[in-house]
Amino acid sequence: MKNVFIIGCGLLGSSLLKSISKKKITKKILVYEKSKTNLTKIKKLKLPGKIVSSLREGVIKSDFIIFCTPMSEYKKIIIEINKFVLPGTLITDIGSSKIETSKVFQNFLRKGINWIQSHPITGSEVSGPEHGDSNIFNNKWCILIKEKNTKKKNLNSLSKFWKKMGSKVIVMNADKHDKIFSITSHLPHLIAYNLVKTAQDFEKKQKNDLIKFSAGGLRDFSRIAASNEIMWRDIFFNNNNNISKAIDLFIKNLNAFKKDIKSKNNKSVLKKLINSKKVRSKILKLKQDINKPDFGRN
Amino acid sequence: MKNVFIIGCGLLGSSLLKSISKKKITKKILVYEKSKTNLTKIKKLKLPGKIVSSLREGVIKSDFIIFCTPMSEYKKIIIEINKFVLPGTLITDIGSSKIETSKVFQNFLRKGINWIQSHPITGSEVSGPEHGDSNIFNNKWCILIKEKNTKKKNLNSLSKFWKKMGSKVIVMNADKHDKIFSITSHLPHLIAYNLVKTAQDFEKKQKNDLIKFSAGGLRDFSRIAASNEIMWRDIFFNNNNNISKAIDLFIKNLNAFKKDIKSKNNKSVLKKLINSKKVRSKILKLKQDINKPDFGRN
Repeated sequence: MKNVFIIGCGLLGSSLLKSISKKKITKKILVYEKSKTNLTKIKKLKLPGKIVSSLREGVIKSDFIIFCTPMSEYKKIIIEINKFVLPGTLITDIGSSKIETSKVFQNFLRKGINWIQSHPITGSEVSGPEHGDSNIFNNKWCILIKEKNTKKKNLNSLSKFWKKMGSKVIVMNADKHDKIFSITSHLPHLIAYNLVKTAQDFEKKQKNDLIKFSAGGLRDFSRIAASNEIMWRDIFFNNNNNISKAIDLFIKNLNAFKKDIKSKNNKSVLKKLINSKKVRSKILKLKQDINKPDFGRN
Repeated sequence: MKNVFIIGCGLLGSSLLKSISKKKITKKILVYEKSKTNLTKIKKLKLPGKIVSSLREGVIKSDFIIFCTPMSEYKKIIIEINKFVLPGTLITDIGSSKIETSKVFQNFLRKGINWIQSHPITGSEVSGPEHGDSNIFNNKWCILIKEKNTKKKNLNSLSKFWKKMGSKVIVMNADKHDKIFSITSHLPHLIAYNLVKTAQDFEKKQKNDLIKFSAGGLRDFSRIAASNEIMWRDIFFNNNNNISKAIDLFIKNLNAFKKDIKSKNNKSVLKKLINSKKVRSKILKLKQDINKPDFGRN
């Protein structure tokens, strides 16, 4: 990889930009961003790399392209870059769902151009280049998606790239990826959005000013539910089959929980509440969170 | 209030103990704790106050009693202290649900003894005296529950007490309290427990090791679902009517959400995702959280 082209310079795009530049991984870094607001921010922030004014300029000058746009933009970009992308170029993306987007690459990218999907498990509820951070990938998982035709050589060089970013790399197929993340990420976000919506409905109905008492739980959900709406709409639409199944399982469990608290089923409720501590212990053991009590943030 | 008697010395009891002692609010602080494990910790931590070995000793030596035990202990404690509690004593508690516990005070506490319920909106997913913190009440709401017979004089002195603890005091009735907190606190916790349960079920069913990928959302829910099981069982049982209604509203919204993502209803989904940002802004404006991006905790 001599020159990298980052398409889309939001939170993740700008973080890649900073990290690649800091670690001097490629000769050139080219960046394309279509939002004027973000372009103004990027210039003001004096981010490294060269901003190009067309996809063409970035594509012909690079051998490694990373899609960092919302997933709903992929098809349009692929059709545009097909005109001038050179053989030998490797394309990846950082989208959070993979089955549907792999079909877009499969069906629309010019044959013979190499592509392998990536999903770095990182981010925040904030978006935009002003939040970019070169350390955002450190010790975080990055999933690479292996398809039937994926070449080992390309998988190796993509894996090397993410390891240089600080990521821990793991390879799986799109189906497994989308199943796992429907539960660990997509359902939690949808649940958070749904909880905030439910609180809003309740507030309207009861005419109770309840938001000011949100410190006891709602607060944390509201942070998660403040995530970027375009990104999450795309995830919910793309992975709607797996998410729907996850919702069904969630509702089944929720109805059982409701029945248990109505009938004051001590044994069953305590079992649920104690069991979840086991998951927490596992998460701490796997270093997915730190074991520091949270008393709210002041 | 000359002497205070704290019954139950877990996270909140020990925090009260430290804060009262630090601010020199009462002459004496007496503490009762029935758990031997906690007693050993308290001694090792050299917490202020005097540990008494019987409820009797604490009750007869104090004019202000704070219940800091699980709510399911109240009835037993009340029946025990009825034998020696002196007129002029003011009793409060810090439990998280109020309709059912107010009935326990109403029905079991000796007539003529003054009681007013409190609910300081603070805490953490950890429990035990080793996590006690004198600043835990600072700038947090404390709800005082006004009943028909609540004397203004007692309400004023209890209010003064919590303000000295650093709390912002607000008065409402038990019914309003339990309605509000069913949405802002009880439902979010139940949802978090239910999400962790759903992830466990899914992991078993799919034989996928998914917990290690929990950084994208599940992690935050698992922290909330690591809260004390006795405390939360008591809350879920006591406020099961309001929580059940909240669950019904939540499931109604969740089914609508599922329908919208299945049919890719762009307008409706974007509206939900954008609306929740408004709640977030309100929460930040009301200083219930800080406006600092969360990238996970390392």
